[in-house]
Amino acid sequence: MAGNSFGESFKITTFGESHGAAVGVIVDGVTPGVELNEAYIQAQMDRRKPGQSSVTSPRKEYDVVHILSGMFEGQTTGTPLFIILHNQDMRPEAYTDIQHSFRPGHADFTYLQKYGIRDHRGSGRASGRETAGRVAGGAVARKLLERRGVQVLAYTKEAAGIRCRTFDENEIEKNAVRASDPEAAAEMIEKIEHLSSIGDSCGGVVECIIRGVKPGLGEPVFDKLDAELAKAMLSIGAVKGIEFGAGFAASGMLGSEHNDEMDASGFITNHSGGIIGGISSGAEIVFRVAVKPTSSISVPQQTIGVNGEETIIVTEGRHDPCICPRIVPVVEAMACIVLEDHYKRQVAMLG
Amino acid sequence: MAGNSFGESFKITTFGESHGAAVGVIVDGVTPGVELNEAYIQAQMDRRKPGQSSVTSPRKEYDVVHILSGMFEGQTTGTPLFIILHNQDMRPEAYTDIQHSFRPGHADFTYLQKYGIRDHRGSGRASGRETAGRVAGGAVARKLLERRGVQVLAYTKEAAGIRCRTFDENEIEKNAVRASDPEAAAEMIEKIEHLSSIGDSCGGVVECIIRGVKPGLGEPVFDKLDAELAKAMLSIGAVKGIEFGAGFAASGMLGSEHNDEMDASGFITNHSGGIIGGISSGAEIVFRVAVKPTSSISVPQQTIGVNGEETIIVTEGRHDPCICPRIVPVVEAMACIVLEDHYKRQVAMLG
Amino acid sequence: MAGNSFGESFKITTFGESHGAAVGVIVDGVTPGVELNEAYIQAQMDRRKPGQSSVTSPRKEYDVVHILSGMFEGQTTGTPLFIILHNQDMRPEAYTDIQHSFRPGHADFTYLQKYGIRDHRGSGRASGRETAGRVAGGAVARKLLERRGVQVLAYTKEAAGIRCRTFDENEIEKNAVRASDPEAAAEMIEKIEHLSSIGDSCGGVVECIIRGVKPGLGEPVFDKLDAELAKAMLSIGAVKGIEFGAGFAASGMLGSEHNDEMDASGFITNHSGGIIGGISSGAEIVFRVAVKPTSSISVPQQTIGVNGEETIIVTEGRHDPCICPRIVPVVEAMACIVLEDHYKRQVAMLG
Amino acid sequence: MAGNSFGESFKITTFGESHGAAVGVIVDGVTPGVELNEAYIQAQMDRRKPGQSSVTSPRKEYDVVHILSGMFEGQTTGTPLFIILHNQDMRPEAYTDIQHSFRPGHADFTYLQKYGIRDHRGSGRASGRETAGRVAGGAVARKLLERRGVQVLAYTKEAAGIRCRTFDENEIEKNAVRASDPEAAAEMIEKIEHLSSIGDSCGGVVECIIRGVKPGLGEPVFDKLDAELAKAMLSIGAVKGIEFGAGFAASGMLGSEHNDEMDASGFITNHSGGIIGGISSGAEIVFRVAVKPTSSISVPQQTIGVNGEETIIVTEGRHDPCICPRIVPVVEAMACIVLEDHYKRQVAMLG
Repeated sequence: MAGNSFGESFKITTFGESHGAAVGVIVDGVTPGVELNEAYIQAQMDRRKPGQSSVTSPRKEYDVVHILSGMFEGQTTGTPLFIILHNQDMRPEAYTDIQHSFRPGHADFTYLQKYGIRDHRGSGRASGRETAGRVAGGAVARKLLERRGVQVLAYTKEAAGIRCRTFDENEIEKNAVRASDPEAAAEMIEKIEHLSSIGDSCGGVVECIIRGVKPGLGEPVFDKLDAELAKAMLSIGAVKGIEFGAGFAASGMLGSEHNDEMDASGFITNHSGGIIGGISSGAEIVFRVAVKPTSSISVPQQTIGVNGEETIIVTEGRHDPCICPRIVPVVEAMACIVLEDHYKRQVAMLG
Repeated sequence: MAGNSFGESFKITTFGESHGAAVGVIVDGVTPGVELNEAYIQAQMDRRKPGQSSVTSPRKEYDVVHILSGMFEGQTTGTPLFIILHNQDMRPEAYTDIQHSFRPGHADFTYLQKYGIRDHRGSGRASGRETAGRVAGGAVARKLLERRGVQVLAYTKEAAGIRCRTFDENEIEKNAVRASDPEAAAEMIEKIEHLSSIGDSCGGVVECIIRGVKPGLGEPVFDKLDAELAKAMLSIGAVKGIEFGAGFAASGMLGSEHNDEMDASGFITNHSGGIIGGISSGAEIVFRVAVKPTSSISVPQQTIGVNGEETIIVTEGRHDPCICPRIVPVVEAMACIVLEDHYKRQVAMLG
Repeated sequence: MAGNSFGESFKITTFGESHGAAVGVIVDGVTPGVELNEAYIQAQMDRRKPGQSSVTSPRKEYDVVHILSGMFEGQTTGTPLFIILHNQDMRPEAYTDIQHSFRPGHADFTYLQKYGIRDHRGSGRASGRETAGRVAGGAVARKLLERRGVQVLAYTKEAAGIRCRTFDENEIEKNAVRASDPEAAAEMIEKIEHLSSIGDSCGGVVECIIRGVKPGLGEPVFDKLDAELAKAMLSIGAVKGIEFGAGFAASGMLGSEHNDEMDASGFITNHSGGIIGGISSGAEIVFRVAVKPTSSISVPQQTIGVNGEETIIVTEGRHDPCICPRIVPVVEAMACIVLEDHYKRQVAMLG
Repeated sequence: MAGNSFGESFKITTFGESHGAAVGVIVDGVTPGVELNEAYIQAQMDRRKPGQSSVTSPRKEYDVVHILSGMFEGQTTGTPLFIILHNQDMRPEAYTDIQHSFRPGHADFTYLQKYGIRDHRGSGRASGRETAGRVAGGAVARKLLERRGVQVLAYTKEAAGIRCRTFDENEIEKNAVRASDPEAAAEMIEKIEHLSSIGDSCGGVVECIIRGVKPGLGEPVFDKLDAELAKAMLSIGAVKGIEFGAGFAASGMLGSEHNDEMDASGFITNHSGGIIGGISSGAEIVFRVAVKPTSSISVPQQTIGVNGEETIIVTEGRHDPCICPRIVPVVEAMACIVLEDHYKRQVAMLG
């Protein structure tokens, strides 16, 4: 109810603030008898962690994965996996000035309105740090999906107003922005470094491509596969929109253009993005999310203090000038969780 | 689990197929002691029903609201409200030709893959008819929200490639497309009538504006207010995308442009669409959904039969050339349900 | 949240008051492609209905089953089954005197405290009538369990202080109290008819035996199979206790007596009642529920009126002097729902 | 779904095995702004821990409480509380002999049937150790209930066949069995020490009394207050039955005896145990649970090995000859969680 769990048959529950002792996740509903180890999860954590390049925050969170339950002799047991990530390199003193004012674009104001109390160190649960538990839980889902032949891949399609012109999935992990086009990546990096130097930030678009999902996945009314993916993606702090297949462009198309016709080899087009009526069609699942520019900037901004007085704020700290490359593994993690959950739900329905 | 329920503290569960005996909804978690009657719900049903104009399906569903439980002497009792809408004007014979082939853009293929069985009359649960129960349940939520001073308003912002240039909310219910701009509305209608005459269809964009929501609503991690609204909207069959506030445009903005600064009178801008960190800010909540063109068209299309053979299909029947005006009340209904649910969840958290 | 749904992977949601227009149930999570018809469900409804004998209420509820969705050509489709039972033979005038006073043992007082409003006709949702939807939903679960080889059987083990001395399951449906011992049944009936003649009522014990459940069913921590069965049974209005296997007698046994030893053919004893650590052992599942005497009696009782004034009440109406025989099918129905739900959950966990 | 969470508006999710690195709990739905500290929770943990006396296991688990999230400057923040308890004094070598055979009365056999894999060290999640997380979560609920004026008290009413003849709540925490009658306590202890000396064990009855609950708490159909308490109690490994108020004795009473009459000062009797129609009446809530004798005994028992061969097993290890005194705080913890959850649900329904 308080919303710190996600999924039904495969479920994660996260905890932890950016400046507390630790963050982590309980993963419930794990298939027993599956080989898993900390290194597998660590590999995903390392993709999310800050300090990877000039376009991400220099904050150091080593994010060393510790699995404290649910494993026996290298295999999952079916009981809850608990994964903890101890926080490191916290410098709460850097945040003392934000104790008295609300940072524009941040959840400072809304959290205080909601709870009547605010942990002003960093951003508490509203921090991107909260996604660490998601990535750990998503890595478990990814391992289970491997057995089903499902691959989940995301990348930065656009950042700082520059859009990829080519798609080569082998390039994605080779550049600091996780773009599919090395030339565009170089332009993005240059632009982001410039914005970083003037204390500003930028947004972008992350696309996710999912292959190998069998047709028939997704519950058809409220828990449509695209509805659940939309919730999962919008639950990521910086995401402000999502579209599937042709997406918003579909609003300008005719039915005769948008409908995906079929021949004996399958769907001829994929304007639907691999989901029709909320159920996977067997085609690639394709969606894009809109990523807003990072809220934390050191450009002076107008705001109010906790007592309502007008003031100017400059957010210091070690922030990401563009969060896209670090959102890529979070998008993948959440997509993995939604898919594994729906596979289990489909089995339950038929079983 | 099978996904025919939505909401937690305020919850709807729907049933019914387009060509069965009835559709309907159980509404659970209704505040007791609230005055309600069938006429109030009927008014919302009448906005959704087909046969309202030249731009919607001529099918007649009178959709007479019957409340069979949960009321006593004109007041809600706190027990489940059950609302049934008997189906009428079914002509299953019109659908016999679709028994043997899959209609492009329809869920025929995906349902068969999921369940191994298909009710080929109309579209079963994948029919837009399924939304009748939502609108009935949403009307109950709307009544509860009235007591909180919340207003939910949606309209067609774009249809058939034509976009509203003005916004006058008093115009919306006066034109057949539910557009906010009477001139644009006239152009839309002309274009849609033309498409209808050639058996084709078009999509559009529906915008929703929510006023009067107090700051502090929404659960901050997975059940963010925008995440739940996104799920609710993507669970509507024809919706392929959603964006909040600046939405996809935010991906091209700088942090210094996108951040909503504050002064003593509140937020100066509203790029966030009234939700920051998943929690309402007190500003208007604004989102837009992408509506795909109606799948059912009478233009000949290439498809396969149930045995995989290639064939050409022409979907006869009485379909909507543009579903936007009828989606408007469904968008409102789902938004009302999300909001009332989150109000109750907020009370529970603090209580 | 408001508690009118039960189950996760197989879920029922009920509605309806005793003196409203109808009661009914939405059954979600039904396996598709299963043959089912109204007659199968009707057979279970007929076991629950009043007016079957001298030991039950003479009220006539014909309880004719109507399935309005979720079926196609005699098979389930996987979409929600909606089953409605229209109310008949309501005589609200018989209840006008209870409008002003609280009946001892009834939920009149507690409902008013909870909701601040009370539907004083009959007992609203607190009426035994509410169980009609459960029995209909349970019949669907029973059909699914048949395919798994599971049999669920309940009977009156004790009523009016008389206990069965023999167990012959073929006798159960042959006598009006559904006892396993025809001689004890005759004694029970004589005693109950006497109590009925003086306006009083009595309780009893119903035992449930479940055969054919494979070992390994049940979630091991909070959703233990016995925990879920306990919730299901205590959710039946007249039930005040439950015990599994040796039950309360186990509290006086030694570990060396109570532990069920095993040999090559399986468990030698079954003190655990077929569930160990919350998981089925493969032995018969056995539990007993304590049924309180019916609250509605025409013996004068001391109570207070709605304004707190002391008064004497005599509850007229057509009530059951002993509810045990009619609770038997409700116990079976709820057990079926719990089991089918756990089968599906087990499949999801492994799948 | 996999059943490691309990509650809706106030929810706990537990993890951890008896011989893993740690056990713990995430508590979600905590009211913000409540003063709380580790010492408060520690006090409850200390009541549950082993090694307190001659009648409990000599195993040492120091169970030092660490709260790693959800607190700020001594107050709850409304975000998830994470509490971890590191395991200590594990001696897995003591369990190597149980690797090859199933201990009678233990979940060894059923877990293997369920999961196909078994963590044979201790009892994994089936260990009483799992309840540590519950007691920690229950302490948080207890703190919230204090603000509502609710007191939850359990004690050993019967152990080793000896029943308390008197009730003095001040005596409970003064004797090693947590009995309400110091004389009976002395007899119990003598009997339990004898059983311990011969390697056997015994069961008992724990009664729970809840004071200060306002009338009107509990959801009336499936989530009745007694139904939820029953689930909560039966989810405790050693509990085999529950009864409310008169309980099983009600089955032998007449309606005219069992009904609780009212006068101007309230209910005259409390046969219902404080819950009528699933809703609290304002009277004391009273229930009793049947506790089976501890399964782990060193008396030789017949069993089978993992390959089905017959064998004799002697369970070594440091076990509790009577678990009642350590179950007392677990019963209280689970009752607190159910109550706090229902208070929040009631607020949501009305709110």
